[in-house]
Amino acid sequence: MTIVTAAILGVIASLVGLGFAYYQRTFVLSQSAGNEKMQQISRAIQRGAQAFLSREYRAVGILVALVAVILVVLSFLTPSMSIWTAVAFVSGASASALAGYFGMYIAVRANVRTTQASSESLNKGLRVAFSSGTVMGSIVVSLSLLGISLLYILFVEAVFGGNATQASSALAGFGFGGTAIALFARVGGGIYTKAADVGADLVGKTEENIPEDDPRNPAVIADNVGDNVGDVAGMGSDLFESYASSIIAAISLAVAGGGIADALEVNAQMFPIMVAAAGIVVSIVASFLVQTKEGATQEMLLGSLRTGVYSASGLVAVAIFLLAALLGLPIEVSVATLAGLLAGVLIGYFTEYFTSGTYKPTQTLAQASAGGPAIVIIRGLALGMMSTLAPVLIVVMATLVASAAAGLYGIAMAAVGMLSTLGITLATDAYGPVADNAGGIAEMAGLPKEVRERTDALDALGNTTAATGKGFAIGSAAMTALALSAAVITALGLNETLTIGEVLLDPRLITGMFIGGLLPFVFSALTMLAVGNAAQGIVQEVRRQFREIKGLREGTAEPDYETCVGISTDSALRQMLLPGIIAVSVPMLLAVLTVLGQGNILGQFVGVKTLVGMLVGSLISAFMLAVMMSNAGGAWDNAKKYIEGGQLGGKGSDSHKAAVVGDTVGDPFKDTSGPSLNILLKLLAIVVLVIAPILRDVTTSTSSATPTDTAITAPAPEATPEATPGN
Amino acid sequence: MTIVTAAILGVIASLVGLGFAYYQRTFVLSQSAGNEKMQQISRAIQRGAQAFLSREYRAVGILVALVAVILVVLSFLTPSMSIWTAVAFVSGASASALAGYFGMYIAVRANVRTTQASSESLNKGLRVAFSSGTVMGSIVVSLSLLGISLLYILFVEAVFGGNATQASSALAGFGFGGTAIALFARVGGGIYTKAADVGADLVGKTEENIPEDDPRNPAVIADNVGDNVGDVAGMGSDLFESYASSIIAAISLAVAGGGIADALEVNAQMFPIMVAAAGIVVSIVASFLVQTKEGATQEMLLGSLRTGVYSASGLVAVAIFLLAALLGLPIEVSVATLAGLLAGVLIGYFTEYFTSGTYKPTQTLAQASAGGPAIVIIRGLALGMMSTLAPVLIVVMATLVASAAAGLYGIAMAAVGMLSTLGITLATDAYGPVADNAGGIAEMAGLPKEVRERTDALDALGNTTAATGKGFAIGSAAMTALALSAAVITALGLNETLTIGEVLLDPRLITGMFIGGLLPFVFSALTMLAVGNAAQGIVQEVRRQFREIKGLREGTAEPDYETCVGISTDSALRQMLLPGIIAVSVPMLLAVLTVLGQGNILGQFVGVKTLVGMLVGSLISAFMLAVMMSNAGGAWDNAKKYIEGGQLGGKGSDSHKAAVVGDTVGDPFKDTSGPSLNILLKLLAIVVLVIAPILRDVTTSTSSATPTDTAITAPAPEATPEATPGN
Repeated sequence: MTIVTAAILGVIASLVGLGFAYYQRTFVLSQSAGNEKMQQISRAIQRGAQAFLSREYRAVGILVALVAVILVVLSFLTPSMSIWTAVAFVSGASASALAGYFGMYIAVRANVRTTQASSESLNKGLRVAFSSGTVMGSIVVSLSLLGISLLYILFVEAVFGGNATQASSALAGFGFGGTAIALFARVGGGIYTKAADVGADLVGKTEENIPEDDPRNPAVIADNVGDNVGDVAGMGSDLFESYASSIIAAISLAVAGGGIADALEVNAQMFPIMVAAAGIVVSIVASFLVQTKEGATQEMLLGSLRTGVYSASGLVAVAIFLLAALLGLPIEVSVATLAGLLAGVLIGYFTEYFTSGTYKPTQTLAQASAGGPAIVIIRGLALGMMSTLAPVLIVVMATLVASAAAGLYGIAMAAVGMLSTLGITLATDAYGPVADNAGGIAEMAGLPKEVRERTDALDALGNTTAATGKGFAIGSAAMTALALSAAVITALGLNETLTIGEVLLDPRLITGMFIGGLLPFVFSALTMLAVGNAAQGIVQEVRRQFREIKGLREGTAEPDYETCVGISTDSALRQMLLPGIIAVSVPMLLAVLTVLGQGNILGQFVGVKTLVGMLVGSLISAFMLAVMMSNAGGAWDNAKKYIEGGQLGGKGSDSHKAAVVGDTVGDPFKDTSGPSLNILLKLLAIVVLVIAPILRDVTTSTSSATPTDTAITAPAPEATPEATPGN
Repeated sequence: MTIVTAAILGVIASLVGLGFAYYQRTFVLSQSAGNEKMQQISRAIQRGAQAFLSREYRAVGILVALVAVILVVLSFLTPSMSIWTAVAFVSGASASALAGYFGMYIAVRANVRTTQASSESLNKGLRVAFSSGTVMGSIVVSLSLLGISLLYILFVEAVFGGNATQASSALAGFGFGGTAIALFARVGGGIYTKAADVGADLVGKTEENIPEDDPRNPAVIADNVGDNVGDVAGMGSDLFESYASSIIAAISLAVAGGGIADALEVNAQMFPIMVAAAGIVVSIVASFLVQTKEGATQEMLLGSLRTGVYSASGLVAVAIFLLAALLGLPIEVSVATLAGLLAGVLIGYFTEYFTSGTYKPTQTLAQASAGGPAIVIIRGLALGMMSTLAPVLIVVMATLVASAAAGLYGIAMAAVGMLSTLGITLATDAYGPVADNAGGIAEMAGLPKEVRERTDALDALGNTTAATGKGFAIGSAAMTALALSAAVITALGLNETLTIGEVLLDPRLITGMFIGGLLPFVFSALTMLAVGNAAQGIVQEVRRQFREIKGLREGTAEPDYETCVGISTDSALRQMLLPGIIAVSVPMLLAVLTVLGQGNILGQFVGVKTLVGMLVGSLISAFMLAVMMSNAGGAWDNAKKYIEGGQLGGKGSDSHKAAVVGDTVGDPFKDTSGPSLNILLKLLAIVVLVIAPILRDVTTSTSSATPTDTAITAPAPEATPEATPGN
């Protein structure tokens, strides 16, 4: 077998995945879209989502074109970078954009169909919503693997004449392309969704005293669009990137021999592609297991989703061992991959433990709300901080096992293993916003109470899977970033041998680590403020409409939904500029300074070690902060829901009011800043990976001239050596 | 000159400092303590503080005895550790405890005298309060330098017969002793002060509707005791430790030749002692410059304190250059020391910028309070996160400059330089709680409005210096921890040469970094929860007294202050156990596993690299988190005060209510969890430094047997090497 065999298998699995997505799409679209009122609402959401996506893609198109030009220019300036990196970059961006487009296309059509199906039965509602989720899940993994497989065949066979080092290096561009889309989709989408949500609530619930999802609220459509924009397209692009980058990191480390014998190099490159291929097929099989019966309890609903995810994990575990044996890879490689798979499942479990209202931490948080808003905030922050323990230790254990089993390659394969069942785990995520929208439509269209009850059950389930999904997204981002960092350090070819002290105490490394540790804090501050600023625009527009449109408050006149959607779109894209620019420009700047500092004094202060330190520092700080923010936000949300469920005084009580404060703080935490850190983390690593060949060639050609010895020598004869005291 | 000369100079400067402290003490005690009512209140605070301190010292005494026994046992078990480490440990603990005792002794007597002096004039009030601060400042630096100087003479000259490596290694025990006290004083004191504060407010202000500092509130004395316990004794022990450890790290690195030529080794050991000695003298001189005239504005008051601090900095800068020249050290060493000194001043400035009501960030935060509590929290957290930028970049710049100038030794000297003026900077900190107490006494004793106005002016100034002091404490803790980590890595003697990738991608190092990054989050979660738990006890007791003591509400019966003080003391010491145990036991556990893992499979998962990684990870994460929490807390506090000053609707407005929520969240942030991270940071490093000789000897004797190569080799003939694809 050659690498082409594996890539062809990857293409075949991807095509099967796309076929399945088409089948599910057809199923969803064949369902009834309900009455005229429902269709009208759904069309407004569709238009809004469409509008955001086309605006976003236009903006991201400029960025992609710009970066592509830079990559092309670099490929002419230096022999270290091939023009094919730019090709891979554009392909990755296109594939991710397409996946986002199709996923959202079906989500905004599945919502109203889920509402309609729920008016027939709970099981039917679940099937429609979940099927639309599988479209997103399948398309993300299929387009990602398809792109990697096709490009790798092209690069290895045709372009680079068998030079796997150059081929894998150019392939990194594909992951970078995915990052560009993810930056806009996750950060911009995160700002959009919370700005619309907060804006709608601030005027609607607080000032006008109308319930959530009330059609009189001009921002209600923007709010519903936001769910799709943030949780479908944003989450999808985030995981597209993790998925692609983990496979690329594994290939890259296999080529560089990161812990793998030379004789197995080719098979080690084939393995991640084949595991991913198996994962796609397995996810399809498992998705047929997701169904429930009428009158199912919350536990039964959750159980049916879990059956799907756990079955997929079990099946893929078997596939991992079979494939490794088939490829003649030692069993340790399978152990490493399995460690990652298991870690993903465990992180999901612990995230649920810390954020679900059925467990003690969130219930205790809800009880603390009797002490007022300040106590809720303190307890929630403490809960979020405490909840970092489990995911960090799980990732540490997985890393130790994977690395002991198969070196750096093992770490990358652990990331691939964790993401192998993404087809179905992403389906359970993307299901959430569809169910949420379905409930909103039921409310707006004034459907009978029993329909709303069913959509509420589906929605509550979606909240649980959303929290779990976020934990999984962070864990896999950390694991992927670790694998990417390993690939970066290997690709930089830093072969100078030094003592541990010389490495760790190099001021450039320390500087880099501090900068890397700092970036997530600054980035989070900016994204949190961005939500507030964007929400302000919505608030003003909603107030204006209530003031100027006669009859709006009484329900006799229609609000102007489109303007709110437009404002959300504008301000989300504008507010994401600063954090986005910082995330891209800091590694770029450090890279430029590194190149400029070769052979002169600047090199004593900035160098590749600064870049490497930045990756390490950001990995530590972003992982902690993302888990903390995401879990605190999830727990606040569910503590509020727990009280709304009738506990501790119920809705309207003082406890409830305090819990609402927690929930509002948690909104940007869990839906904007926390998830955005995933992108930051991977972005920093993939930018450096893409330019690693240039940095390697520049630094190795002049490294002998770099002053590294900073020891001070005795200056003059007046300072004569003295005897050691006491001698 | 030999090291003995420097040490003798250190002893002389210390004695001068102690003499100055005695002079200031006599001045303070010679002031009138006011009328009987005032003295009665003051005595209650004195008794409470005394009670806490003796309880705390009894508890810490057990810990110190336990650790001393362990150190003695280790010195018998292994030739790598000397019994003198235990002696140094007990000395350090005793010196820090003594400094805390005297500092607090004078603070709880200066408070009522400040009240009385303020009834005469503002300047007199400032002089009394500031003089009591200088007692604390002088005693901390003098006892610290005295201990180091005497022990180093003893060790170098008598005990180790001129072996500076062994002498400096044993000296590390002195810093460790300081840490043991700091752990109890800073963490326990931090819990005490906020539990009493929150407990008093929750019942007093909220339930009983009586003003702050009202003598009817049974927790009011505990609250006043808390200010002394947390901000005098806690802050003092924290900085005692930084001060001692930075000097020890510099000596240790000078001995180990961290960037210093062998010929200058002895002079490089003398330099930190002499810089510290100069700093003590200079602080005394500068403290006479602190005075103001009657009717001084807030700016003039602040200006007079600044005159003192800046003059001391200027004078010590001159001394640094003169001393380096005298010792024949290259000018680069002075540059490194100066970089640290300047960094300390700059961090103080930026902390004030982010947390003072006179600058934009806090004013914007205050304005945001119109949006309700959730917005205040989001903005405050964002402000805290953003404010990490300046201190981190300042520390990075100082590190780069110091390291480029004089290697690792330069980094340690930067920490020494930053702390050289501690005598006066600590005086401005310790002044704060005295002024705060003075105001409380004026209120409780029902003194005329003009007295309260003067004490309010002194108190407001104290709030500003407290915020600046916290920033300085964090910055110096980070700088000291960096220097200690450098000393640790050097002392471990890890001479194996590896590539950068082999060092950084070692799974043990990665594990350590993640654990180190995690610890501050878990530690902060626990300390925040500890405040809540301890406050609960106070709330119940205060409620009980209002229920059971007839006439208390009407002011005709006396509350039982002592019980509240007792409960605060008990619960603070009990609640600090868990975070304290975690902080001490994690490095210990990793060290034990490291020793156990020599030459067997365990060594693949845990080793000295795990310990080193832990130091690096904790440095990054604790520094960011501490700055964020401390500055967010300071900004919330001052945003509330800004509104109480009559802005934005003033006291009682909705904005004020929202700001109060922020302030309450900020209390444990800025006074418990944030500052406690300083201790965690240094504790982890000093524990490893103390046991470094053992670890070095254990690991170097068996290192050849440790399996480090985890590469996987082709297993069997069936996996025949394949050609690279395309060939």
